Amino acid sequence: MSRMQGDITPNQEEAGMNSPIDPRRMAHAIRFLAMDACERVGEGHPGTPLGAADICTALFTRHLKYNPADPLWFDRDRFVLSAGHGSMLLYALLHLTGYAGMPVEALQSFRELGSPCEGHPEYCPAHGVEVTTGPLGQGIANAAGMAVAEAFLAAQLPGVIDHRSYALVGDGCLQEGVAHEVASLAGHLRLGKLTWLWDDNRMTDDGPIGIAQSEDLPARFRAAHWQVLEVDGHDPEALDAALTLAKRDPRPSFIACRTVIGRGLPGVEDTRAAHSGKLTRAITDAARAALDWPHPAFVVPPDIAEAWRAAGRRSAAEYQAWQGRVAALPPAQRRLLDRLREGRLPEGWQDGLRAYAARAAEAGLTQHGWKTCGEIVEIASAAIPEMLAGAPDLEAATQHKRSLSAFTAERRDGRYLHYGVREHAMGSMLNGMAAHGGVVPSGVTYLVFSDYERPAFRMAAMMGLPVLYAFTHDSIGIGRNGPTHQPVEYLAALRAIPNLHVFRPADAVEAAECWELAIAHRSGPSALIFARQPQQGVRREAGANRSEAGAYVLAEAEGARAATILATGTEVALAMRARAMLAAEGIQVAVVSMPCWSLFEQQPRDERERILGRAPRIGVEAAVRLGWDRWIGPDGVFIGMSGFGASGAEEDLWRHFGITAEAVAGAVRMLVAR
Amino acid sequence: MSRMQGDITPNQEEAGMNSPIDPRRMAHAIRFLAMDACERVGEGHPGTPLGAADICTALFTRHLKYNPADPLWFDRDRFVLSAGHGSMLLYALLHLTGYAGMPVEALQSFRELGSPCEGHPEYCPAHGVEVTTGPLGQGIANAAGMAVAEAFLAAQLPGVIDHRSYALVGDGCLQEGVAHEVASLAGHLRLGKLTWLWDDNRMTDDGPIGIAQSEDLPARFRAAHWQVLEVDGHDPEALDAALTLAKRDPRPSFIACRTVIGRGLPGVEDTRAAHSGKLTRAITDAARAALDWPHPAFVVPPDIAEAWRAAGRRSAAEYQAWQGRVAALPPAQRRLLDRLREGRLPEGWQDGLRAYAARAAEAGLTQHGWKTCGEIVEIASAAIPEMLAGAPDLEAATQHKRSLSAFTAERRDGRYLHYGVREHAMGSMLNGMAAHGGVVPSGVTYLVFSDYERPAFRMAAMMGLPVLYAFTHDSIGIGRNGPTHQPVEYLAALRAIPNLHVFRPADAVEAAECWELAIAHRSGPSALIFARQPQQGVRREAGANRSEAGAYVLAEAEGARAATILATGTEVALAMRARAMLAAEGIQVAVVSMPCWSLFEQQPRDERERILGRAPRIGVEAAVRLGWDRWIGPDGVFIGMSGFGASGAEEDLWRHFGITAEAVAGAVRMLVAR
Repeated sequence: MSRMQGDITPNQEEAGMNSPIDPRRMAHAIRFLAMDACERVGEGHPGTPLGAADICTALFTRHLKYNPADPLWFDRDRFVLSAGHGSMLLYALLHLTGYAGMPVEALQSFRELGSPCEGHPEYCPAHGVEVTTGPLGQGIANAAGMAVAEAFLAAQLPGVIDHRSYALVGDGCLQEGVAHEVASLAGHLRLGKLTWLWDDNRMTDDGPIGIAQSEDLPARFRAAHWQVLEVDGHDPEALDAALTLAKRDPRPSFIACRTVIGRGLPGVEDTRAAHSGKLTRAITDAARAALDWPHPAFVVPPDIAEAWRAAGRRSAAEYQAWQGRVAALPPAQRRLLDRLREGRLPEGWQDGLRAYAARAAEAGLTQHGWKTCGEIVEIASAAIPEMLAGAPDLEAATQHKRSLSAFTAERRDGRYLHYGVREHAMGSMLNGMAAHGGVVPSGVTYLVFSDYERPAFRMAAMMGLPVLYAFTHDSIGIGRNGPTHQPVEYLAALRAIPNLHVFRPADAVEAAECWELAIAHRSGPSALIFARQPQQGVRREAGANRSEAGAYVLAEAEGARAATILATGTEVALAMRARAMLAAEGIQVAVVSMPCWSLFEQQPRDERERILGRAPRIGVEAAVRLGWDRWIGPDGVFIGMSGFGASGAEEDLWRHFGITAEAVAGAVRMLVAR
Repeated sequence: MSRMQGDITPNQEEAGMNSPIDPRRMAHAIRFLAMDACERVGEGHPGTPLGAADICTALFTRHLKYNPADPLWFDRDRFVLSAGHGSMLLYALLHLTGYAGMPVEALQSFRELGSPCEGHPEYCPAHGVEVTTGPLGQGIANAAGMAVAEAFLAAQLPGVIDHRSYALVGDGCLQEGVAHEVASLAGHLRLGKLTWLWDDNRMTDDGPIGIAQSEDLPARFRAAHWQVLEVDGHDPEALDAALTLAKRDPRPSFIACRTVIGRGLPGVEDTRAAHSGKLTRAITDAARAALDWPHPAFVVPPDIAEAWRAAGRRSAAEYQAWQGRVAALPPAQRRLLDRLREGRLPEGWQDGLRAYAARAAEAGLTQHGWKTCGEIVEIASAAIPEMLAGAPDLEAATQHKRSLSAFTAERRDGRYLHYGVREHAMGSMLNGMAAHGGVVPSGVTYLVFSDYERPAFRMAAMMGLPVLYAFTHDSIGIGRNGPTHQPVEYLAALRAIPNLHVFRPADAVEAAECWELAIAHRSGPSALIFARQPQQGVRREAGANRSEAGAYVLAEAEGARAATILATGTEVALAMRARAMLAAEGIQVAVVSMPCWSLFEQQPRDERERILGRAPRIGVEAAVRLGWDRWIGPDGVFIGMSGFGASGAEEDLWRHFGITAEAVAGAVRMLVAR
């Protein structure tokens, strides 16, 4: 994505604020564009665009700091449409305020294959879509992550980082658990530049909100230490006043905007049908009559169109002033800003990781997987000042904080965020930080708790965001905590997510290699998976990054291969032990370490076949078989888990489940004897 | 599991209440058993057993209705240790109150392989463990599901169903999003027999709670319309009074019990180390001195042991009276009760489903997948009065409510629960209903939202609970809502979960067959997956349940097989179209429908090979390839998705992603030409 320099004329009058155009009619422009687009394609969700048009008009004409001529302006306010089904609200706003990527033709192709106006907004900051939304609760969590990123970067670059994060949120988002996790944490962290605008229309897809909810949401947010403001969501002045108060309060703000869903659709507004009911010409005609909007489909009258374009220029003076402040930055600060906004990592960031790998290879380092992972995060954090680590209440068990200071309400320069036991909030906030840019976000938890944040993984993968999800305690090797804490299906489940690299390094050398690959990977997220138990050193050299190919021959057979053992993680050492046992019997096998299947899949077929070899294959992984048949082939043997684990001493479990060097050697003997 | 009839002597004095033994010393018995067990094995979590010992003493000696001599007493109160890491608290209570499955030897084998005292409690109601807990937030959600089950069954069997559900919950559980989903819904549903006892020790694994939380939790629960009581968690009388008030209020109750973590460990209590720090002999000796407990490890003095056994008899009179009420039930009610508590489905429950399959086969029924699924749920609900359906705000889109009435705060005989947009709460509450027994719980949502409730799936699979998770909108076939709403990785991710049957029927005939198999499957959960778009009828006969084998030859080749096409769901019809196209060219292929891989895996190898055949194979599924290599083999071709979907018209998407009959036929031609 190229970074446009916005060439806009400063407008001394604050557009909107002093405009002679009634903001209610400006909101009608949103309503009719949304209606026309939904009517044209025969589907969509008009309820939110029509109901929340006044809210967004107040925000975009009087408060939001943005520049349609430079959508990627680093110090812009972020606006997230968390209620992503109301996508036409966002597209209409972007079109009206003058985003080049959102001409009327785009709106007219709403929901057609290839249109920038997808059914739900899809991440494309270059035309104004800050994050992909749709799965409920994600957008508001992303916005909270953006507010963290802003606070974190403002501590490094005061004066040039100072912006706010807004999210429009419906009841659906607020019913999701992740909303509560984030509300609790955002209040605790006093993310004062975060504002959620609640489209309080009291209507759900199933019917009136009272069918499934009676909670006092304002009281709920007060309990989490938010500023709570309650306004008429169709009153421009009340909305303006609330947004002004939100800016003045050090707490995050929750603005409850009482609205009517589908406002402007006679006979449909304020009913369940407004959510996603089909709009016919008769209905839109009736709306045109009711709202005195005699203009044809997709036509906005010139005075209103110009008022919206003026709104799009409302931050021109701020934009110019900001450019001036940037130009005046001391050179080191300027280089930092440029690097961060371009998403470039600092020169030589890999050096520490490579030195770590070299030391580990030299020493044949054998140590707990979590410890290795924690040490690497510390090294990477030292080299990459924009890295922000954290964990959901597992600092003791994962040891990832180490020398890092905490990011708190008081200390915004902290490098480690205590998320509390809120995995889902962590995952979705990491996504928001990555979407914000300028931050390298990472978070660690037990692999078995990754299911709690899984909805975030696919969003990062879909958006292509460089998020680092680290996991420890990756198998029955955790021992006595038992099957609830022993992942068996997680490697397969993570490998199923497109565009997510899943790394399971064998030892500390591979660990450093995999972390380097993950940090360098800027077009998608990575999952980095470690054992609780010691990971035995298997690599005694650390020159080229061998993990880069996804799989490689760790130990070739002495002579022709009788078999090839494929393994990942701690099972690689087990494979090496089996190899040694077999060699003593004169059976020569190769061991292939496969730290990242998706990278291996990208290798040329010949190369893959060379590594896998033609000899019979045995796959070894303390997890379910799903996916392994691709590598071991129809005559292969898989040694792993066929069900859940058990509670017991680690060594008892390996024996109990038959995942031992002896079992692997036995399988090879059987294959060889066939 | 056999159902023991408890042969206990009624005790006219309420044990505990009038006992001369100081309840604080009874709590010490829990503390020392927990300490001794943790010390013996060298690990474990003493913090919760020690901190919450007084809370559970008050509950088990004065309030809980239970009978250690008949652990499966259907009208017992349910107690869930949601803070599952404090497992020794539960084991100590079960041992002290006289559960036969929990002798002192069991406690002495805490965390050893094969011990009933696993690291975290594992579902075994026969010895008093109501659900598996450990992953935070699950237990309290299960308890809410139990309270729903109780209310639902009490409406059918007044007088013999009248019990309460309690959960002990720590800060970790309450930080999880699912806790908030459930709190909101339980308050809305006025689950007055649900009580959460909050072990408010203000200490987390990372340190003082203030590191990550400052929320006013009592205010948060008041906002959700719970009764909130705040007490000293070490004061027996205060706890007793609060538990009494909880019983009197029509709202669910949240009892905030202020406690000291690790209470009784000098120098360790009230510190972070108390959570799961290693207990040495020196520490436990100091605790013995401090608490005046001169007894050896695992020894409880006779007076305290007898007071606990008396507590275990506290419900004897209630138990006898209940047996009397059961004996006096009218025969039909008695048969219903017996059937429900034994988990037997009503006679002939399959008839409606089979008739539906026959009608669908006869008509060659082609209709939307969600509609088929909704019709089947309605038919099954009519035949199985204990079936309780529901959805998270997707009644319009999934049409599963149909003629079912709603289960609400006012109507406990409703058959459909509006969960709001709270998928995780739904999943975990369904598990609680199944663990309670007497209910056949099912819930439906879009497949793409299943990630939100995924943590619940593995718990049901691990416990072997018969839960029915239904999903619609299963692929790019949903069309214009775009990639956020198009599952591609979900089939693989679900198939990775051990002991979860994943059904993806091709048409309405298979749908009825799969639902019958899922309902009949009583030792694990099932996922039933349907399209949004029409599922074309491919089965024209509905005699034997062909889905039972997991995969079967839907259409054999006319003559020798040139190839075999394997498919699931709507792609089976596509495979049939390809077969017809190829037949016109003289290429004869078989089509194998594979509605349930896990059932197919259970078939004998010969039978699997017969069905799959020796001809080259093509797998077709609008999802990722992961797992398919097992069936198509190394030379097979897979036609499916390699990444996320897109927003556009359904027909455009099938073409765009190359999942068409033409593409399948083309692949066959290439394979045949090799």
